[in-house]
Amino acid sequence: MIEFRLGLINPNTNSEQTEAMRGVAEQVLDEKSEVVAATAARGPRSIETAADHVIAEPETLALVRSMTYVDAYLIACFSDPALDAAREVTEAPVVGIGEAAYIAAARMAKRFAVLTTLPRSVPELEDALDRQGLTRRCVGVIPMGVPVEEQGIENELAYAAILERGRAAIAERGAEALVLACGGMADSARSASRDLGVPVCDGVAFGALLAYALVRSGLRTSKVGAYAWPDSAPGVASDRGH
Amino acid sequence: MIEFRLGLINPNTNSEQTEAMRGVAEQVLDEKSEVVAATAARGPRSIETAADHVIAEPETLALVRSMTYVDAYLIACFSDPALDAAREVTEAPVVGIGEAAYIAAARMAKRFAVLTTLPRSVPELEDALDRQGLTRRCVGVIPMGVPVEEQGIENELAYAAILERGRAAIAERGAEALVLACGGMADSARSASRDLGVPVCDGVAFGALLAYALVRSGLRTSKVGAYAWPDSAPGVASDRGH
Amino acid sequence: MIEFRLGLINPNTNSEQTEAMRGVAEQVLDEKSEVVAATAARGPRSIETAADHVIAEPETLALVRSMTYVDAYLIACFSDPALDAAREVTEAPVVGIGEAAYIAAARMAKRFAVLTTLPRSVPELEDALDRQGLTRRCVGVIPMGVPVEEQGIENELAYAAILERGRAAIAERGAEALVLACGGMADSARSASRDLGVPVCDGVAFGALLAYALVRSGLRTSKVGAYAWPDSAPGVASDRGH
Amino acid sequence: MIEFRLGLINPNTNSEQTEAMRGVAEQVLDEKSEVVAATAARGPRSIETAADHVIAEPETLALVRSMTYVDAYLIACFSDPALDAAREVTEAPVVGIGEAAYIAAARMAKRFAVLTTLPRSVPELEDALDRQGLTRRCVGVIPMGVPVEEQGIENELAYAAILERGRAAIAERGAEALVLACGGMADSARSASRDLGVPVCDGVAFGALLAYALVRSGLRTSKVGAYAWPDSAPGVASDRGH
Amino acid sequence: MIEFRLGLINPNTNSEQTEAMRGVAEQVLDEKSEVVAATAARGPRSIETAADHVIAEPETLALVRSMTYVDAYLIACFSDPALDAAREVTEAPVVGIGEAAYIAAARMAKRFAVLTTLPRSVPELEDALDRQGLTRRCVGVIPMGVPVEEQGIENELAYAAILERGRAAIAERGAEALVLACGGMADSARSASRDLGVPVCDGVAFGALLAYALVRSGLRTSKVGAYAWPDSAPGVASDRGH
Amino acid sequence: MIEFRLGLINPNTNSEQTEAMRGVAEQVLDEKSEVVAATAARGPRSIETAADHVIAEPETLALVRSMTYVDAYLIACFSDPALDAAREVTEAPVVGIGEAAYIAAARMAKRFAVLTTLPRSVPELEDALDRQGLTRRCVGVIPMGVPVEEQGIENELAYAAILERGRAAIAERGAEALVLACGGMADSARSASRDLGVPVCDGVAFGALLAYALVRSGLRTSKVGAYAWPDSAPGVASDRGH
Repeated sequence: MIEFRLGLINPNTNSEQTEAMRGVAEQVLDEKSEVVAATAARGPRSIETAADHVIAEPETLALVRSMTYVDAYLIACFSDPALDAAREVTEAPVVGIGEAAYIAAARMAKRFAVLTTLPRSVPELEDALDRQGLTRRCVGVIPMGVPVEEQGIENELAYAAILERGRAAIAERGAEALVLACGGMADSARSASRDLGVPVCDGVAFGALLAYALVRSGLRTSKVGAYAWPDSAPGVASDRGH
Repeated sequence: MIEFRLGLINPNTNSEQTEAMRGVAEQVLDEKSEVVAATAARGPRSIETAADHVIAEPETLALVRSMTYVDAYLIACFSDPALDAAREVTEAPVVGIGEAAYIAAARMAKRFAVLTTLPRSVPELEDALDRQGLTRRCVGVIPMGVPVEEQGIENELAYAAILERGRAAIAERGAEALVLACGGMADSARSASRDLGVPVCDGVAFGALLAYALVRSGLRTSKVGAYAWPDSAPGVASDRGH
Repeated sequence: MIEFRLGLINPNTNSEQTEAMRGVAEQVLDEKSEVVAATAARGPRSIETAADHVIAEPETLALVRSMTYVDAYLIACFSDPALDAAREVTEAPVVGIGEAAYIAAARMAKRFAVLTTLPRSVPELEDALDRQGLTRRCVGVIPMGVPVEEQGIENELAYAAILERGRAAIAERGAEALVLACGGMADSARSASRDLGVPVCDGVAFGALLAYALVRSGLRTSKVGAYAWPDSAPGVASDRGH
Repeated sequence: MIEFRLGLINPNTNSEQTEAMRGVAEQVLDEKSEVVAATAARGPRSIETAADHVIAEPETLALVRSMTYVDAYLIACFSDPALDAAREVTEAPVVGIGEAAYIAAARMAKRFAVLTTLPRSVPELEDALDRQGLTRRCVGVIPMGVPVEEQGIENELAYAAILERGRAAIAERGAEALVLACGGMADSARSASRDLGVPVCDGVAFGALLAYALVRSGLRTSKVGAYAWPDSAPGVASDRGH
Repeated sequence: MIEFRLGLINPNTNSEQTEAMRGVAEQVLDEKSEVVAATAARGPRSIETAADHVIAEPETLALVRSMTYVDAYLIACFSDPALDAAREVTEAPVVGIGEAAYIAAARMAKRFAVLTTLPRSVPELEDALDRQGLTRRCVGVIPMGVPVEEQGIENELAYAAILERGRAAIAERGAEALVLACGGMADSARSASRDLGVPVCDGVAFGALLAYALVRSGLRTSKVGAYAWPDSAPGVASDRGH
Repeated sequence: MIEFRLGLINPNTNSEQTEAMRGVAEQVLDEKSEVVAATAARGPRSIETAADHVIAEPETLALVRSMTYVDAYLIACFSDPALDAAREVTEAPVVGIGEAAYIAAARMAKRFAVLTTLPRSVPELEDALDRQGLTRRCVGVIPMGVPVEEQGIENELAYAAILERGRAAIAERGAEALVLACGGMADSARSASRDLGVPVCDGVAFGALLAYALVRSGLRTSKVGAYAWPDSAPGVASDRGH
């Protein structure tokens, strides 16, 4: 019997990535759990710019709204698109893989480095760390120069880049753990951890378990204040035109 | 002859508010300036929740993209939706009325208070102040309990609320200036300033002039790093599916 | 068959509280989990001062060292005594109930209040929030004036204080969730959440599940840098004299 | 007919620099604007130390006080001497070129670098960025080793230093824009921007326009609180002995 | 024989206050110490505004420069005028009474309140606390509404205000110690401490001793970087025109 | 006649280091002062890990409690073990050598570097700087790779490492002063300062004098709030079982 249903939402349109992330989540959840996965119907195939992010957000929110029979949601893109908005439209716990990866890393190490794909993403990742109060814990956000599409453990070049930049971050910056800032790298985390000798955190595996932990502890998203139902605000016509 | 064309973009669907804001902007710009205004075609009629914000962002971005013949853009919603994304898709300066109002207030006073509509907006406004490094300058974000739709200077109740909460912020919290956190209040700023005896900053009037100032000083949005053209990122398929 | 063994360590000497916390943890973990609980052999019966904290820390660390057959540790005192030290002496994940409660609250709400027992604890709790980067998320640390010993759901006075201070925090400070800053209040959290209509987070229930989540995701405490084995530091004679 | 009169105040005694800065300001303001420029009568010829700054401040304040017929003031030294004091003695908006340059840069790019003259100035510039809440936006304050007196676009060595350090900041630190931290470099900004391919912000051109924007939006410096008239403080004998 | 000569510099022109502060300093230093006091020759009689501060700074700096035969300097105005500049022109340690009072308070208590004279001073005092990294330690900067001139222990009204506001800060804000933000209150500190039952810190007594401590430990102001001799900067003509 | 008795407490068990530190303190205090030194009876011989720190804390606290006849305490380990706890159990001022060294350095220079022994200590030292609000003042925490046991001025290798890392910090990072983050280096400070040409701050010499300054200014640790006597907390059974 299924006791925990996780809604895993991929904000981009790459359904192979959705399947890979579903696999990662299923592997760590127990046999009484089920992962219901959904892929954005339209929008960017990978989310690498602020414009991509903005376009992916309403798709993500719409998927959360449509998936009403799950116990918790995992927004499976490292920039945590539509996270606050999703928390408004449901009482079920909502977790983003970005925040999840940082929560894990900050338990495993006092200092971590973040590996990302493109240099242009560095400022936004630094800003996200600051919003989560973790600036001091991070010794650097390091771009690898590998586009999202070429990631994944089966891509040797991308995996070699993780190892090379990871080793440098440990030796030169004092990184004690690594965070992989991309859902597409989730399947590389365990191997990289073994090869580098430090914890390598992805947000998919731990995010699925964090959602489970919140549900099992009986918590529901607050409906008082910032996350109150959108309809509860007087004069709001929300997304009727959408 | 027109020397400065401002693209004023209203992220919500309330075209009367668009016209009111256009009027405020035209009043402060000189006769060689023109304001081209656009209203979101769909989405929320007022933006009061994170869900509203998320839905309004791609509409805002699409309007920026479609309005290619202007010298600068003013995103005329206090939560500055799609501001970073807009800066990616153009070299013309882009200003948000939220950031503009804070820039003005921080020049006129050492400490200011922010008046907003609903209590649920307080945390997000506090977060925005923090992102702009202005937390210390603000003595409080104060909700007035008046929904966006009922704002505007002709609405006596809404205006009375500005005066009452404004007076309290000055007397009890040490506010030296006020920021009106809503495009719909823009037309009340001058009257309120006169009635309260302190600067009352709205982002529409000053935002239009700030955009003018950036253009006249010859600055263009950087195309290196975070605001590089979205197409310049390898492997990005941006919003082709949209 | 037991798949997850949690070492729950009570840093104070109150074994009844240990049992109550064990009960809370067992209730949220599944039937394949086991909670092994231990109580400090000596030291303060409740930890309410910095002096108490200092005395409880080596006891806590000694219990972690002696309990070698568990998958993860939960340090079950809200001030998270010996947390960094514990992470040095084991590769198993170590979680503190203080950090756990804040992690849960920050997912359920944008703003929370913290209820504590004595006024003297307020500065240290504020400092702990700052260390975790959560100062902005907290609308206030509120003392209830109820000593630790008199807490617990069966104590009507203590429970009434939670409800009264909780209601005031919601109405007057904009709290959207509450954190109970004491292991002894753990059993009151669910009732209080029902009675107050907002999430009430204790660190015992969620902390046990957070430890489970870290273990299931395959993570181990880093042995590079700050959490390296104490013996790995050249010239260190650690606690040989102890 | 003149509609906007800007009081440009050079806190140092170098009147050639005053003229150069007046030229930069006049170039960006329209034909209905007039720039009234004044040079400190005594004090340092360039402001490079805290001692210089302290000596230049009362001269700056005295010039603001004596120039009563202008609509706004621009304090044209990057360390913004006497900015708060000037705001006390007038209701007209007062802008410093330091703050102006940062405001411009933070709109054009997410991350910028600051180029300054001497290594000893780096800590004070870092502190000023922190006071303005912009520490996170700046990837480095970089000294060029060129004394103030040798700056200006006609000085080939100084200009070459801007290009060299600028290129390094873009390539190695992720700078997306540059700020020239010296009034004497103002005339190099446009050329450098063209040569480097990123926005190069000086505070003179944009500062003049920012002052114009504040005046046109109808704002006046608050006379409540920190910027109240000095005479309004009971028991103050201000500068009677001066 | 005199082993320690302290140069106590009063940045305002009130020589009675100079004598009172000299008395406080002499009382805490031992018999081998001597206090050489100097009063600003011109400028404000009390420093209550930014304009006052700016005018007092070069006078303060000139006094430091002229007093070459002392072992250390104490700048005896709570806003620490010309502190950085003074450190440039001497190798002897320089201490400000503002920073001194905070250093003392932060050792005696985890949380303190600051009592000041006028409401307009609150923002600048908050900013100074922030520059010193002590924002979190302060529970409030509280104006007493008593002008500087009427302070001193013999003034019953002013002393009564200290006690009243002090008691409220302890009871309502959790203040554990008080800081008196004015040199003119220095002689009230001991009495107030006795009457209120918490440490009351003034910067004159402790500042004199802090200067002694720095001298006795053999430290000299760094002449590398920000505090290097002004003449060491190439192209600097410092205050030759003054 | 002795007018000032300092209780110098060495939290580690190395009594030779105690004697060396006593010598440093006696050298800077005058002839009316006496240094009473005590060494931890058990625990680590040097404190290099969080586990060491935790074990040393109750020993430190016990020494403070047992040494009742002194005027002030100096906790002579750079990680300031049991500092808050010690302040609870006495009204006499308590100073840690870590905080003392930073207070001295921040008066002598605007930017300093910290030299420590082992790389693993870097994160905790960075955290301590942050707790004291000094993050911005520090240009880097630099490990020297020399174990505590091999420090001291007579150890040529250790001293050469101070000079080498110190020179690099000055030249490459803009350090204007150095802090030696270890009691065992105290005797090297003066020589290193002479050899490097910048202030080199140790916490033992200045810490002894800071304690003297606090005592002479008549201050006593607050017994209201966080540092109230442990017994004053209702329901506290402190360390009776210890």
